[in-house]
Amino acid sequence: MTLHSEILEQPARLEGLLKNQKQAVQEIARQIRARDIQYVFLTARGTSDNAGRYANYLWGAYNGLPLALATPSLFTYYQAPPRLRNALVVGISQSGQSPDIVSVLEEGRKQNCLTLAIVNNPDSPLARAADLVLDVQAGEEKAVAATKTYTAQLMALAMISAALDESASRWDELAAIPALASQTLTLDADIARMAQRYRYMRQCVVLGRGFNYATAFEWALKLKELTYTSAEPYSSADFQHGPIAMIEGGFPVLAIAPTGKVHDSMKAMLSKLRKEHSAELVVISDDASTLALAQSPIPLPHPIPEWLTPIVGILPAQLFACHLTSVKGLDPERPRTITKVTETH
Amino acid sequence: MTLHSEILEQPARLEGLLKNQKQAVQEIARQIRARDIQYVFLTARGTSDNAGRYANYLWGAYNGLPLALATPSLFTYYQAPPRLRNALVVGISQSGQSPDIVSVLEEGRKQNCLTLAIVNNPDSPLARAADLVLDVQAGEEKAVAATKTYTAQLMALAMISAALDESASRWDELAAIPALASQTLTLDADIARMAQRYRYMRQCVVLGRGFNYATAFEWALKLKELTYTSAEPYSSADFQHGPIAMIEGGFPVLAIAPTGKVHDSMKAMLSKLRKEHSAELVVISDDASTLALAQSPIPLPHPIPEWLTPIVGILPAQLFACHLTSVKGLDPERPRTITKVTETH
Repeated sequence: MTLHSEILEQPARLEGLLKNQKQAVQEIARQIRARDIQYVFLTARGTSDNAGRYANYLWGAYNGLPLALATPSLFTYYQAPPRLRNALVVGISQSGQSPDIVSVLEEGRKQNCLTLAIVNNPDSPLARAADLVLDVQAGEEKAVAATKTYTAQLMALAMISAALDESASRWDELAAIPALASQTLTLDADIARMAQRYRYMRQCVVLGRGFNYATAFEWALKLKELTYTSAEPYSSADFQHGPIAMIEGGFPVLAIAPTGKVHDSMKAMLSKLRKEHSAELVVISDDASTLALAQSPIPLPHPIPEWLTPIVGILPAQLFACHLTSVKGLDPERPRTITKVTETH
Repeated sequence: MTLHSEILEQPARLEGLLKNQKQAVQEIARQIRARDIQYVFLTARGTSDNAGRYANYLWGAYNGLPLALATPSLFTYYQAPPRLRNALVVGISQSGQSPDIVSVLEEGRKQNCLTLAIVNNPDSPLARAADLVLDVQAGEEKAVAATKTYTAQLMALAMISAALDESASRWDELAAIPALASQTLTLDADIARMAQRYRYMRQCVVLGRGFNYATAFEWALKLKELTYTSAEPYSSADFQHGPIAMIEGGFPVLAIAPTGKVHDSMKAMLSKLRKEHSAELVVISDDASTLALAQSPIPLPHPIPEWLTPIVGILPAQLFACHLTSVKGLDPERPRTITKVTETH
């Protein structure tokens, strides 16, 4: 199965990216530092947009960079792009093809901003529109649902963050990730069994916070694309501001809650959902007491530096979505309706 | 019924806000123009966050201001706020109480940014933390689900946009909104009848794009808070990048598609959903051929200037959520779980 093998291929791809592109990343960081960048203006769609959500927290927390997620229709339909003074304009895309994403980079360049494309295809319109190009080298992705390009994008963003910091210790933490990813993927058979229980799940909520806000979005997106489940992602804080009202007994809540600064708040929310709402919980965590709240606990290796938990934490979520697809009698290779390259304007 | 009467109260509240606060808004705009603002850093939760989504398009398209939506947990849990140079830091909140929103404004002030609070309570922690305060004067909102404070926030953002532009014609367009809102609310009885059809709807998707991306989010939030329906909002572009896979025959898609620059793309998506996916469509629009695609068409007055369609377009959506709540035998005054003031950290 192509999707499954691309999921399993990720540790090797991450290792290759770390080794082959460290120098390119350091050069990109050098050029970013040479400019008076005041904020990042980032554009992406779908899975790549979830990588952008990771950048929002990571580059904010470690590099002091505020990040604005672009609204591409301002550049295309409205033809009213904002003034991008002192912005680093970043486009993330697997294919590098989507015209609306390309138009944001072109406008950035026209306004004399430094532009960076993070792509899996360095010979693409997006790459050609950018001053700086980082090829995430995930290899051709054949499955329609993106998996290995997502973790490669996260790794690329994490490498840029470490390089901007010139932090040797953070590079050491990065180097440990491929092995932690391999260890996590040994959950494969357990997750295949666990997925049985969700054969008739039609809707669910997916929670994450901080660095793993991105993981919640990406887990939900895989479930929608592959299993046609109505899976809605939230930060646990936004969830409290209204949507929690829809949780009744047995309602499935999927959560990514590794140890780290937001862990206590995630755990408190999960405890409340289990005890007061009788929710059904699927929880990815490296904390035993948090896992104990779940009907379906998915253990992560411990410890993983919090800033890198999204790269490891999405892996069991991908496996969960992949196996649930088979359990539901659907074809993971041919999700209905969607295509590999989606061109939006 | 408090919720229903607060919905009907909106034209008068909007008219009052326009009249009473024009001068205050012009003074705020003057102070913003006096600074070298390079981008907006905006923080909000829940309904107020949806008002922020409107600002993202509106201030981008009309005022050339890129807008970053803040990630409050960076300021609270991670205590790693980004460097906010040359940012206008804006907080939007009904109550002005949520500690995480207040902490973003406090940090902005500490970093010598100009800070603006848009609140319904000028004697609140958020107002006290800001250099500039705009009271949206919606009156006390008793219903748990916010309606009149949302349209007041949109109106406040629109007034600031017009004032920054110093555009007399845009002020004239604003002045027409209360009457258009009144006209739209005459749909009340029709929408009450229409809601019957959705008695057993458990999940749906809500689509909007451009200025009305915010409307899709707010319509979905009202459905979740009041009817416990799993309602997921998307821009039609993001929807194409994966989630469209979950639409099968009869799946309800709610859409806000007034005439304007993104109308053709919305209409093409709705046509595809009806013809190729046999989706069930509830459509709010002022275009007859777009309404003709829907099983449940909700006509808006025509014309409404596109930038102001979110203020008028949310009204039938609020009525739809309110009536569907009653149709489902639920109490619109007492949504389970949520409270009027949600304090997140």
